[in-house]
Amino acid sequence: MEKNALLAERNRGFFRAKKLLVLNVVSSPGSGKTTFIRETANRLGALLRVGVIVGDLATDNDAARLRTAGIPVIQITTGTVCHLDADMVSKAAAQLDVDQLDVLVIENVGNLVCPADYDLGEDLRVVLLSTTEGEDKPLKYPPMFHSANVAVVTKSDLAVAAGFNRELTLLNLRRVSHHAEVFELSAKTGEGMPAWLDFLVKQRNAAKVG
Amino acid sequence: MEKNALLAERNRGFFRAKKLLVLNVVSSPGSGKTTFIRETANRLGALLRVGVIVGDLATDNDAARLRTAGIPVIQITTGTVCHLDADMVSKAAAQLDVDQLDVLVIENVGNLVCPADYDLGEDLRVVLLSTTEGEDKPLKYPPMFHSANVAVVTKSDLAVAAGFNRELTLLNLRRVSHHAEVFELSAKTGEGMPAWLDFLVKQRNAAKVG
Repeated sequence: MEKNALLAERNRGFFRAKKLLVLNVVSSPGSGKTTFIRETANRLGALLRVGVIVGDLATDNDAARLRTAGIPVIQITTGTVCHLDADMVSKAAAQLDVDQLDVLVIENVGNLVCPADYDLGEDLRVVLLSTTEGEDKPLKYPPMFHSANVAVVTKSDLAVAAGFNRELTLLNLRRVSHHAEVFELSAKTGEGMPAWLDFLVKQRNAAKVG
Repeated sequence: MEKNALLAERNRGFFRAKKLLVLNVVSSPGSGKTTFIRETANRLGALLRVGVIVGDLATDNDAARLRTAGIPVIQITTGTVCHLDADMVSKAAAQLDVDQLDVLVIENVGNLVCPADYDLGEDLRVVLLSTTEGEDKPLKYPPMFHSANVAVVTKSDLAVAAGFNRELTLLNLRRVSHHAEVFELSAKTGEGMPAWLDFLVKQRNAAKVG
């Protein structure tokens, strides 16, 4: 754990030198991480070049989905480990041509518990919460939601069918995190994506200057 | 871990002596465990008396939801631990009047990784997979899906809105588990519940004889 903290800082320094904006994307299984990342990368398009590191216990399904969309991607399979760690990310990043990238998105293992404790050296931790998961996830998984810089409510296109209570969800989120930037969107329909992309561009420009 | 295996067998012996059918219900956060358990308990009604042990990192929201429905329930809060273990279950069961119960349902922490390794002394491990989570969860979380005796596809009422591919999901499930009994249902609308309840009644009768 202490070793991970040191390696994460080394990653942070390396990414800073390369002027990369690095996102650590975490959520439950099935919250829509891969579709969200694919649409983020595609829509940023010519503005910013995006590469992805994907973590899963098994399969390279998510990497294949991203690769098909023309996105540079490295898959990490963790076996039975429920999170990525800084060393895995360092080794995966070495396989990407990071000089050709502006943004590196790390898609963590689908899990709302274990990844909370592992700094990967990211600039922003982004937690996803889909409208179909219910309103009380922030209260049930406080370490993860508290540690996130950004919270994204996904699958807004399913909100009505799922009977999603938006106000209660945002209230619960604020009870755990006063600081997180919040976005609400559907990667499938594109609703809400522009605000998220604007935010990323600003963050990346700040990282480039800083 | 070895200690957990021993305590789990002790639980198993205790539950057997009490003629309790014990289910360990696992899934991602937000797959609908609590609604599924509430509807199972309510619909079994006069046939079988159901008690519940609920595990969460924080909050007693799920226990409150079940208690409101008149179901005997004990909440375990695990802090930062991503699964229940046999010792926690033993202590929680001691707080229930198990002589008044036929079925004990353990709602594990929402997580598709950690709970796979912890036997609680259950008769049946039941993994839930909602139609909004995507089709490849069994391939991505093989230890959990492989270790389950029963797989329940939940939220069938959202299948169309979510663009759920039923055939692919069942195929992926079979690639990881040849043996799991599969049910497809919506606890919200009641669709598919009767087959699941019939199965439980048969399992409980078998446990009573055995």
